[in-house]
Amino acid sequence: MRYAERLEKLATLMRVHGIENFLITRGPNLLYFAGIDGPAALVVSLKLERPVLFVPPLSLHAAEEYAYSGLEINNTGTNARFEVVVAETLSSLDGTLAVDDIDIDTYRLYSTLLREREIRQGSSVIWELREVKDEEEIQAIRRACEVADRAMRAAYEVLYPGITENEVKAEVLAEIHRSGGERPAFDVIVASGPRSALPHGPLQRGGMRDRALARGDVVLIDLGAVVEGYHSDITRTFALGKVGEEFETAYRYVLAAKEAAEQYIKPDTHCSYPDSVARRKLEEARLDQHFMHSLGHGVGLEIHEQPRMSPTSSEVLAANMVVTCEPGVYIKGKWGVRLEDTVLVTERGAERLTTFSLHDYEIDV
Amino acid sequence: MRYAERLEKLATLMRVHGIENFLITRGPNLLYFAGIDGPAALVVSLKLERPVLFVPPLSLHAAEEYAYSGLEINNTGTNARFEVVVAETLSSLDGTLAVDDIDIDTYRLYSTLLREREIRQGSSVIWELREVKDEEEIQAIRRACEVADRAMRAAYEVLYPGITENEVKAEVLAEIHRSGGERPAFDVIVASGPRSALPHGPLQRGGMRDRALARGDVVLIDLGAVVEGYHSDITRTFALGKVGEEFETAYRYVLAAKEAAEQYIKPDTHCSYPDSVARRKLEEARLDQHFMHSLGHGVGLEIHEQPRMSPTSSEVLAANMVVTCEPGVYIKGKWGVRLEDTVLVTERGAERLTTFSLHDYEIDV
Repeated sequence: MRYAERLEKLATLMRVHGIENFLITRGPNLLYFAGIDGPAALVVSLKLERPVLFVPPLSLHAAEEYAYSGLEINNTGTNARFEVVVAETLSSLDGTLAVDDIDIDTYRLYSTLLREREIRQGSSVIWELREVKDEEEIQAIRRACEVADRAMRAAYEVLYPGITENEVKAEVLAEIHRSGGERPAFDVIVASGPRSALPHGPLQRGGMRDRALARGDVVLIDLGAVVEGYHSDITRTFALGKVGEEFETAYRYVLAAKEAAEQYIKPDTHCSYPDSVARRKLEEARLDQHFMHSLGHGVGLEIHEQPRMSPTSSEVLAANMVVTCEPGVYIKGKWGVRLEDTVLVTERGAERLTTFSLHDYEIDV
Repeated sequence: MRYAERLEKLATLMRVHGIENFLITRGPNLLYFAGIDGPAALVVSLKLERPVLFVPPLSLHAAEEYAYSGLEINNTGTNARFEVVVAETLSSLDGTLAVDDIDIDTYRLYSTLLREREIRQGSSVIWELREVKDEEEIQAIRRACEVADRAMRAAYEVLYPGITENEVKAEVLAEIHRSGGERPAFDVIVASGPRSALPHGPLQRGGMRDRALARGDVVLIDLGAVVEGYHSDITRTFALGKVGEEFETAYRYVLAAKEAAEQYIKPDTHCSYPDSVARRKLEEARLDQHFMHSLGHGVGLEIHEQPRMSPTSSEVLAANMVVTCEPGVYIKGKWGVRLEDTVLVTERGAERLTTFSLHDYEIDV
C-alpha cells in the first residue's frame, strides 16, 4: 500500500488548508494512512518528522505486525487514559489542530485536555484523498465486485417457491467466503413479496420472522463483499413467475433510469446530475414519487463513502472515483424494484464493475 | 415489545435528571424505544403528550409498518434538511435538551439551529434502562446464544489440517442462517497459528491472504449471532493435535481465570472486580501481562454495550444484565487463547447462556 504517498498528499493538503496538526481516529482513515484499523490514533503534524501512531496495549501486536513501517509507534500503556497520552503530545505541537469524525464525548474530552484550544473538523480534507482511488484500490474493488457477482449468481440459482429469505442469505454468505471474500460488505438484504417495498428490507426484531418465497413474489437482493478491506455493492430484483404488468413497467423504467443516469457518471459532472436524470426518466411513468432515496454513494474502504450521489450533493465527479448507481421504485404493500451496480468513473465514462445480468429477472417457476 | 413501558421509564428518569426534552438518533436507541432503527429521530418531551418520530421519506414505509403505534410520525419530506425540521420542533419546546451520542458535525448543526442553546449528553440515562434486560430481551438473547452454540459446533466439526480460515467462516455463517439467526453479530474471527495471538484476528488488507490450518496449530474462533435484533458472543480456542506444554498451561489458566471471574458476576458487585479476579488467577502463572484487554462487555441490541467489565469501570452489576466473560492470553508469534461466554446476571449468580464445551479443545488429527 502507498502509505508514504498518501501521507505526503495529506501533508500537502494540510498546508493548503492551514492545518498544522491532524488527529486521526476513525478506523477506515487509520487503515488508509497507517494500515491498521484501531483502536488507535494517528497524529500527523507538519512539525514532526514522522507521524505518531498511538496504540493501546490491545492493538500493539497488530500495529507492530501490520502498520506502515514509516510511523513512530507509541504504546499508551495502561497507566493513563488513552486520550490523555495522545493529548500530551498534541499539547506540545503548536498551530491549528484538525480531527476526523469524533463523537461529542471525545471532542469534549480533548477540548478539556487541550485547554479549550480550537479543534477543527477536517474530514473533508481526508475525503479529498480517499474518494479518488489509486490503482491498487481499484484492483481490490474489482475483485470485491467479482465476488459479489458470484454471490448474486449463487442466490439466483436457489430462488424458487418454498426457500426462505434466510436460506438464500446463507447461500450468499457461503459463496462470498468460497470466492475469496473476507466478509460481507453489509448485512445481506433478501426481501421478498411486500417486504421488497421496504428499501432496507424487513427490520429484524420481535415478530419479524423468516419468510418463505412464493409464486408471484418479487425478491429484492442487495449484497456486497469485502476484499482486502475494499467493498462492493450490487442489487438485483427478481420475479418468481409473472407478477403483473405494473411491476414489469416499473422494472423497465428503473432499468432505463439507471442506464440514463450512468451516461452522466463521468468526470466534471456534478454528483447531483445523474440523480436528476434518473428522476426525470421515472417521471415519464409517474414513478418518481416512489423513488425516495438518493441515486448512490461512493464505495471503498467503507460501504457508504463520499461522494454522495444525491440531489443536494455539491461535489463533482472525477476519474477513479467509485460510486453506486441504484435507482428504485417502491410500491407499499406490493413490491419494490431496485437495480444497482458499483461503477468506476473513467475518462470515457462509467464502467460497471458488477456485471450480473439485468435482464434475466423473471424466473420460471 | 414494551415500548410504552420503556418510554414511561425514560420519562421518569428524565424527571430525576432534570431533562425536559430528549433527542434520540442512534439506531439501537431508536430500536429500543420506537421499534425502528432509522435513519430517524425520536423526540421525547415531558411537554408533549406523545413522542414524535421524525422520519425522512426513505424510512416512512418502515416506520408506518414497524414503529411503535403510540408515536406521532412526522414525515420530514424532501423540501428541508432533516435536522432543520427536527430543530423547528425542538425550538418550540422549552427546558433542558439532552441528546444521545451524535457526531460533532451534527452537534454543531443542532447547536446553530437552536441558537447556541445548551445541549446535554444524555447517553448514560438511556444506558441505565438498556443495560438491564426485560424478559423478552433475555429470551431473544437466549435464542441468539443457542444459534451461536450451533455455529461453533459447525466450525468445530470441520476443523482439520488443510481447511482454510475463510472456509471455516463460511460454515459458521451458513449455520447461523440455517439455525434461525438473522445475521452474524460481528465479523466472524477465525485466527489460526500465530494469527491467534492477535486478539482481533488477522487484519484484512493487501497482502493478508486466507490461511490453511496445519497440524499443531491453535485456532481461535470468535463468533455471535443476532436473533430479533439481540446479539450473542462466544469464543473458543482449539488445538489441531499437540501444541505443547506452554499452550496447555495457558489454556488451563485462562479457563481457571474465567471460572474464578464468573463466581463474582452477580448483583451488587463492581464491574471491575471480576476482571481483577481473572488477572490475579493469571498472575499465578505469570501470564497476566499477556492479558491485554478487558474481561468483557454488555451484550444486547449491540454487540458491545454498557456495562464494561474493565479495570476502570465504575459500574455495578445488577440482575438481568447480560455480559461477556472473556479472559485471554496472547503470546506474540506463537498462539493465543481466549475463552468467552455470554452470561446472564441472576440473583443466584452468573448463568452461562452459551454452553459449547470448554474442555474438548484438542482435536485428533
